[in-house]
Amino acid sequence: MTPRKKLRGLVAATITPMTPDGQINLPVIRQYVDYLISKQNVKNVFVNGTTGEGLSLNIQERKQLAEEWVCQGKDKLDHVIVHVGALSLPESQELARHAAAIGASGIAVIAPFLFKPTNKDELIAFLQKVASEAPAVPFYYYHIPPLTGVKIRVEELLDGIKERIPTFQGVKFSDRDLLDFAQCIHKHEREQLAFLYGVDEQLLSALAIGAHGAVGSTYNYLGRKTNLMLEAFAKPDLALARKYQFLTGDFLNFVIKLGFGVAQTKAVMTLVSGIPMGPPRLPLVDASEEFIVKAKAKLDSIVWPDSD
Amino acid sequence: MTPRKKLRGLVAATITPMTPDGQINLPVIRQYVDYLISKQNVKNVFVNGTTGEGLSLNIQERKQLAEEWVCQGKDKLDHVIVHVGALSLPESQELARHAAAIGASGIAVIAPFLFKPTNKDELIAFLQKVASEAPAVPFYYYHIPPLTGVKIRVEELLDGIKERIPTFQGVKFSDRDLLDFAQCIHKHEREQLAFLYGVDEQLLSALAIGAHGAVGSTYNYLGRKTNLMLEAFAKPDLALARKYQFLTGDFLNFVIKLGFGVAQTKAVMTLVSGIPMGPPRLPLVDASEEFIVKAKAKLDSIVWPDSD
Amino acid sequence: MTPRKKLRGLVAATITPMTPDGQINLPVIRQYVDYLISKQNVKNVFVNGTTGEGLSLNIQERKQLAEEWVCQGKDKLDHVIVHVGALSLPESQELARHAAAIGASGIAVIAPFLFKPTNKDELIAFLQKVASEAPAVPFYYYHIPPLTGVKIRVEELLDGIKERIPTFQGVKFSDRDLLDFAQCIHKHEREQLAFLYGVDEQLLSALAIGAHGAVGSTYNYLGRKTNLMLEAFAKPDLALARKYQFLTGDFLNFVIKLGFGVAQTKAVMTLVSGIPMGPPRLPLVDASEEFIVKAKAKLDSIVWPDSD
Amino acid sequence: MTPRKKLRGLVAATITPMTPDGQINLPVIRQYVDYLISKQNVKNVFVNGTTGEGLSLNIQERKQLAEEWVCQGKDKLDHVIVHVGALSLPESQELARHAAAIGASGIAVIAPFLFKPTNKDELIAFLQKVASEAPAVPFYYYHIPPLTGVKIRVEELLDGIKERIPTFQGVKFSDRDLLDFAQCIHKHEREQLAFLYGVDEQLLSALAIGAHGAVGSTYNYLGRKTNLMLEAFAKPDLALARKYQFLTGDFLNFVIKLGFGVAQTKAVMTLVSGIPMGPPRLPLVDASEEFIVKAKAKLDSIVWPDSD
Repeated sequence: MTPRKKLRGLVAATITPMTPDGQINLPVIRQYVDYLISKQNVKNVFVNGTTGEGLSLNIQERKQLAEEWVCQGKDKLDHVIVHVGALSLPESQELARHAAAIGASGIAVIAPFLFKPTNKDELIAFLQKVASEAPAVPFYYYHIPPLTGVKIRVEELLDGIKERIPTFQGVKFSDRDLLDFAQCIHKHEREQLAFLYGVDEQLLSALAIGAHGAVGSTYNYLGRKTNLMLEAFAKPDLALARKYQFLTGDFLNFVIKLGFGVAQTKAVMTLVSGIPMGPPRLPLVDASEEFIVKAKAKLDSIVWPDSD
Repeated sequence: MTPRKKLRGLVAATITPMTPDGQINLPVIRQYVDYLISKQNVKNVFVNGTTGEGLSLNIQERKQLAEEWVCQGKDKLDHVIVHVGALSLPESQELARHAAAIGASGIAVIAPFLFKPTNKDELIAFLQKVASEAPAVPFYYYHIPPLTGVKIRVEELLDGIKERIPTFQGVKFSDRDLLDFAQCIHKHEREQLAFLYGVDEQLLSALAIGAHGAVGSTYNYLGRKTNLMLEAFAKPDLALARKYQFLTGDFLNFVIKLGFGVAQTKAVMTLVSGIPMGPPRLPLVDASEEFIVKAKAKLDSIVWPDSD
Repeated sequence: MTPRKKLRGLVAATITPMTPDGQINLPVIRQYVDYLISKQNVKNVFVNGTTGEGLSLNIQERKQLAEEWVCQGKDKLDHVIVHVGALSLPESQELARHAAAIGASGIAVIAPFLFKPTNKDELIAFLQKVASEAPAVPFYYYHIPPLTGVKIRVEELLDGIKERIPTFQGVKFSDRDLLDFAQCIHKHEREQLAFLYGVDEQLLSALAIGAHGAVGSTYNYLGRKTNLMLEAFAKPDLALARKYQFLTGDFLNFVIKLGFGVAQTKAVMTLVSGIPMGPPRLPLVDASEEFIVKAKAKLDSIVWPDSD
Repeated sequence: MTPRKKLRGLVAATITPMTPDGQINLPVIRQYVDYLISKQNVKNVFVNGTTGEGLSLNIQERKQLAEEWVCQGKDKLDHVIVHVGALSLPESQELARHAAAIGASGIAVIAPFLFKPTNKDELIAFLQKVASEAPAVPFYYYHIPPLTGVKIRVEELLDGIKERIPTFQGVKFSDRDLLDFAQCIHKHEREQLAFLYGVDEQLLSALAIGAHGAVGSTYNYLGRKTNLMLEAFAKPDLALARKYQFLTGDFLNFVIKLGFGVAQTKAVMTLVSGIPMGPPRLPLVDASEEFIVKAKAKLDSIVWPDSD
């Protein structure tokens, strides 16, 4: 996966396919890679993240899955970022070493969220201990306060981070605080960092302030449409970009009201891609049949600007 | 204030000037109006809102203040929106009747937030009882869940609202949920409503999805700069718009870290405009001298694109 | 209402009876007073509090209602505490002066909860401004962080409070932090203060650490049973006290699952007492017929230790 | 560890001793066991819980530590409960099988808290999958909503739980909702379950409603005093019990204000017991020297009823 392109554009937060009895369905990954490239025009992935139920897997499963993505993505994908965050520091370190060994394009770490770092120094100390186990691998911080409760401002965190974590390469920013995100982008615009937005339903708002790309689960099945939004924004054709954002938002708004989480994302991906994503792992439970029927009807009803 | 222009652009959420002993300083309003127009290029105001400590005033004070703004704004301001929300429905109704009587351009109502409406119907019922007391006055819903805890989605609230509240005219949307906001704008784009954004530090992100304008406290002292951002966005010159957003964000980010509320807003407005805004009312307490010194230094240090 | 007895035992947080068209039903108060005394053995009331929809009334209504309770309670009730808290300091002061003028036994003030005091000094400053308007009336602080979001520890607040508020007389403590409550009781055990607990469903746990009494809405209709619990606890007959707490808890647990707020409390009081409490005021809406049927069936099904 | 006594009284939530370089200090466990028995009169432990940084350890460390406690506690301790909860179901199952294999007296499981079960059925399904891996080992549910955000009422969870989890034996209830806890105790009083309270600073309030015992970190160093409180309560000598609760509360109230978490608990245990507990693991960081000095001074200043 070297020499590496700069990480830009869309990154699919991958779903973890499972067999009906709850084991990881590794053989499906090859098909998944090809689908993302050919149908969604997405060539970067974020593996073992929230959408991928990374923290619901055990260490062996996480390693196997990361390995399969790196292996299948070779010469096809541009970036395979492996999320190696864990509540346990030694586990996270073990995963970081493994990701380095298999040749991942980057590693990402979520803030520990049971015992929470209470200030920038405690968080940096934790991240540094993980990053230093993979000293040649680009490191991304995965900021998602609605999930972790860790609200340390990224703009503060990044002040001086390169001295502590030389491999620091960017942020997956999954929060609605666009003041913080804009300050990050602005203050580091001369560095070659990647500031990727993680709240899919309002990506256009993040592009407006300079986001370099996005990491999200919807790019598994709405990647092509979102790429068209990115193109429209780049022209700039704001009216068209807005049209795409409104339409993807219309779908998400609809399913959010029905209850939309990882289990439902698996179901939507299965119906859109035809690739069997299987059930989620407990404590998550399968999307209801009613959800699937309604989500499909909604998707089918959307008239996209490029559809004629 | 008739015939009314459509409400677009910036609306200053007015500060309530007080004398050193805590009474409303009515004589200052005239100067305040002229300042907003001549120095900030802002011709719309939102009176007795959060910034204006509306709910810290008693009924008589709220009436006097609204009256002074309408009176001083006559033939000068385009819109004087009076916030008439209150925890007590009869108080809110009394204020609505009063606003109608004095010729306000519009009334706005915050969701009741001690006993909270738990669904759309309960909230609409409350708003309708207020709106109907001013049957010829445009009505705006003031959505600010971080303050009220009322998280009913505006997109849902607006579905059918015109049947219940014929005077419904728009929303002051003070939340970071831009999916909800975008859906509101999109679904009502053929109606003559005003969707005004209320999180000043990320206005550019709201413009990107189609916001018609903004209501906020920073437009009291950063109105001219923000108007330049609006102009840049309209061209579109996104790079320039972003520059303005970064710089206003830089200031706000700085003061937020120091602790930035209504008391501090009063202090900043006093130092920028020279108009004495006086102390806040308890439970708020004066901004510290240290805050004022630091805020001033920060403001002075910013180099704006239009400064040479 | 003088000479006053020390405030101990149960205090009913009164419900505000309303007519079907939403006006205060003043003539019913006399009957209400007699009911509390004769049927519930409760001789203290807390008027215009949360249960009483105090903040949903306008100033005139709050005054009328306070006056009626003081008037009807004369020579019958031991204590009529009037809640005079408001978001607006001048309104709260006006209500305090009025309560003093009509001869209330005490006044109580909730922490302001839109702009929230951020430390002890800010809260004390606000409370002091109200208390000093009624310099001969016992003052109670109404602590209810689940409603106000003001989490300043009472134990800290009380340190030195007598110097600032000479009329300070006690606390209505409506929170589950029994460490804080126990420290309050312990540190002030030589003063003649009243520490009254406000989470009805776990009063026995507060008695165990020394609570002097309780203020709550359930004592309107479960006062007699709760008085029997207090007697059992005083003996001590813990097994019997626990039995009462389990049974009142069984009822509350049941209705809480159905959705239990002020509207439902009004309905329960109406069916138990026969006194028409009427509808709640918007944004609250009437309890459903289904709720009333189920609540009644549950109440009827409980077999109390004293029932044979 | 068989035949087992019924689990009653105090259970120390064990601290995990670490070496200065952050490895588990296994050789210290033997001394720790003897200290708990001889100095604190505590003969039950809860291993690898929150206090024990269980989720900060990797699987191998958790197994080693559990094994050491079971081994050193043999013929000395009454109960060694091993917490086997994890975000990953297969990890939790692996730990459950291990706990069974080494002869633990019981296993406990916290609710998964990244993806949260949204109702009773989802939580039971997860717990059942773990419990069934140790079909002969008593199973305890560890309820701690302030940490997990999982607020499913235990009283509901327990309805029918024995059919799903035949080994179900009780609850560590670490929440302030004493209505829920009281209903659990009351509804299952004929079964041989253990309802153990986990909010140390208000244990007396839980005893009042029938708690069978307590699990907590303070019993590591305040176990003897708390046992005296239990004895006083059993007599009943409520005044004396209250005195103990006030004094332990006085200490906890003091340190909570200084910032009191697992790192500080380690420091306090080290200074009280003389056994080196070592540093916490990241993201936690060492207690400050200032904290230790102040905590020691406070402890030394307390005059206990039994001290003369």
